Amino acid sequence: MAAVEAFDAVDLIRAKRDRRELTTAEIDWLVEAYTRGYVADEQMSAMTMAIFLNGMSRREIRDLTMAMIASGERMDFSGLGKPTSDKHSTGGVGDKITLPLMPLVATFGVAVPQLSGRGLGHTGGTLDKLESIPGWRAEITNDEMFAQLRDVGGVICAAGAGLAPADKKLYALRDITGTVEAIPLIASSIMSKKIAEGTSALVLDVKFGSGAFLQDIERSRELARTMVELGEDAGVATSALLTNMNVPLGRTIGNANEVRESVEVLAGGGPADVRELTIALAREMLALAGRDGEDVEGALDDGRAMDTWRRAIAAQGGDPDAELPVAREHHVVTADRDGVLVEQHALPFGIAAWRLGAGRARKQDPVQHAAGIELHAKPGDEVRAGQPLFTLSADEPERFGRALEAVEGAWRIGDAGEPVQDGGPLIADRIGR
Amino acid sequence: MAAVEAFDAVDLIRAKRDRRELTTAEIDWLVEAYTRGYVADEQMSAMTMAIFLNGMSRREIRDLTMAMIASGERMDFSGLGKPTSDKHSTGGVGDKITLPLMPLVATFGVAVPQLSGRGLGHTGGTLDKLESIPGWRAEITNDEMFAQLRDVGGVICAAGAGLAPADKKLYALRDITGTVEAIPLIASSIMSKKIAEGTSALVLDVKFGSGAFLQDIERSRELARTMVELGEDAGVATSALLTNMNVPLGRTIGNANEVRESVEVLAGGGPADVRELTIALAREMLALAGRDGEDVEGALDDGRAMDTWRRAIAAQGGDPDAELPVAREHHVVTADRDGVLVEQHALPFGIAAWRLGAGRARKQDPVQHAAGIELHAKPGDEVRAGQPLFTLSADEPERFGRALEAVEGAWRIGDAGEPVQDGGPLIADRIGR
Repeated sequence: MAAVEAFDAVDLIRAKRDRRELTTAEIDWLVEAYTRGYVADEQMSAMTMAIFLNGMSRREIRDLTMAMIASGERMDFSGLGKPTSDKHSTGGVGDKITLPLMPLVATFGVAVPQLSGRGLGHTGGTLDKLESIPGWRAEITNDEMFAQLRDVGGVICAAGAGLAPADKKLYALRDITGTVEAIPLIASSIMSKKIAEGTSALVLDVKFGSGAFLQDIERSRELARTMVELGEDAGVATSALLTNMNVPLGRTIGNANEVRESVEVLAGGGPADVRELTIALAREMLALAGRDGEDVEGALDDGRAMDTWRRAIAAQGGDPDAELPVAREHHVVTADRDGVLVEQHALPFGIAAWRLGAGRARKQDPVQHAAGIELHAKPGDEVRAGQPLFTLSADEPERFGRALEAVEGAWRIGDAGEPVQDGGPLIADRIGR
Repeated sequence: MAAVEAFDAVDLIRAKRDRRELTTAEIDWLVEAYTRGYVADEQMSAMTMAIFLNGMSRREIRDLTMAMIASGERMDFSGLGKPTSDKHSTGGVGDKITLPLMPLVATFGVAVPQLSGRGLGHTGGTLDKLESIPGWRAEITNDEMFAQLRDVGGVICAAGAGLAPADKKLYALRDITGTVEAIPLIASSIMSKKIAEGTSALVLDVKFGSGAFLQDIERSRELARTMVELGEDAGVATSALLTNMNVPLGRTIGNANEVRESVEVLAGGGPADVRELTIALAREMLALAGRDGEDVEGALDDGRAMDTWRRAIAAQGGDPDAELPVAREHHVVTADRDGVLVEQHALPFGIAAWRLGAGRARKQDPVQHAAGIELHAKPGDEVRAGQPLFTLSADEPERFGRALEAVEGAWRIGDAGEPVQDGGPLIADRIGR
């Protein structure tokens, strides 16, 4: 990175505190000086709180994003000879869409370089899910990634430490200082990694609802719009779907059981909502890469996407035919009356799965691949008294107590004809050109 | 301190970020956990920025103040058998009032336990000034302080490290994170030390104007009101004067030369503004201690206050008759025309004195006792072309250049009859019962 003009950290904090826009040179300096340790964590922490409360202009957010990209390496897939298209989800409960989506899109000759993360808190991580497949490796080299994109067409792997290191440092700080939910900071964090990753098209799955990172749809819309603008400003064809995270996505929450459900979708089956969102996101990714009107549904139904999945798993050392881990202990919750399941709230089920061992409380914790929840009924389903509603699974039976506490009041059986409270349609809006 | 309920730092930061009032238990925990290192500097830094931008209620400010007091020791002068009264100034250019004020009030049998600090930036520190007296020691024990209050009646000395350690830690953090000027934080910082010091009455000299910490009189009024409320809530009889810091106070800025001017005031002379403010603050301090109607002016004119001064200086090892240091180099600025001095701005003269060596840029730097400025004319004075306007003094002649830059445009000679721009009367308001 070129030498930049020197500023004083306190002056910049005071400027943002007093609602003055920071210049491009100031933002470049701040991010570089913070990455190098010349600006202290406590100074950046005051700055992020000032940004949280006073906001940033579109130009400032773009500068922040570009400065974070410039803090590290930038990947380049132009040598592949085919378009690239990627997807990012802001995270939800039971959101396993990346797993069927990557092979589905890759089947059509559009390369999918999906750099993913591990989960923290109640939303699962894509790498945690795939690691329940015996032998599968998340860490591969850039050369292996390039080769797999060329030969298989898609890859899901861990992001290297070299991409946007400023973002990594800043995210860890935001996590302990109560500044995670600021739209300029979320948007620049996500987009700096995705732009540095070198994709030429990007679809954002921005969740709203009780199980989402931002509950309010208007805030989610603002985040989506901010990220679409950032992508377009950086020359990445970008669009976003606003999708409903009031109820869990699909019928499984956890790691191994979400892989099982993903394989069902790749076999042409699976829950209707998972299939619907997979198809919608695939169409977006293909359209942004210049491939409108492909037979996406057919590729799920005739086994082409499944073939790509099997090759991608095998390329990273995984055995696509291996048995997935099964939990040692199960606890079934049944309906106490006849009626219709009218409520099933995502957040408490996400927290319950986390407490069963599917997620981690601290970055260094392992996850338990077999732990999780299977939902036997979805909102709108008729149920009979005594019928299983959901099953909690864990390796350690002492985990059931706190998981059951989490889901207390998280579902309700109503009378026939009572409106279902699922927060409306799965896909609420699309943002982009 | 009693064990307190445990909270999560991130929850408390998010609460203040979202404009929720913190409870007493939350504030107690926060301050104790921060003092002990369980809450990290970067977390406290985000919290102080949230407080800066979202404010605190009167109850929160009181809780913060009391929690900072509880972080350390608390002094008690009730065994003296006489009332105690203290003064705090928010700091200004040429503000040497503590020096004549302490002995003046002590002369009337009211003990003055004046714990003071050193200067940082363009406002001087009382201890720096007194240390220009050969032999004088700022650091004395609590027992020596008590004995001097009993025998001499007044003391100016360094605050021990045991008073409000949470405030010391927090102030150092605010200094590097752009959160110094927040009224809840200024008020609790000042008042925690003054209440812990154990005075039963306190007069606040809250400055406004270009040379003050807060330039705007309404912000100064809010700070004064907040501090008076804090004092009253803690059982300390408290009042505040709002005083004008648009022009330097008196005719001297620096250390040794401010001591000389203070001695002139104690001899019944000195500049009119220094004498006026000394008398006004002495009347306030005495009134709050139940001594209305004393002959304050008489004690300056007949040498009683001077006697107390000499005994106080001697009690701390100083020689009240010693020669004070004189600078090696002087630079005189003269009037370029006949007229009236209509402008003389405090801040640039403060910065110039600082650059001459009278102040320090970093906490660990020494000050140069002889460096400073003497003002030969004050706003409203008639001047003749060629007449000296002010003299800069320094031990190192290379300091004159940047000091002269600082005062460029800082004064103006106008025509006879032109209104003087001094920002109005010296004492603009009084706040308190």
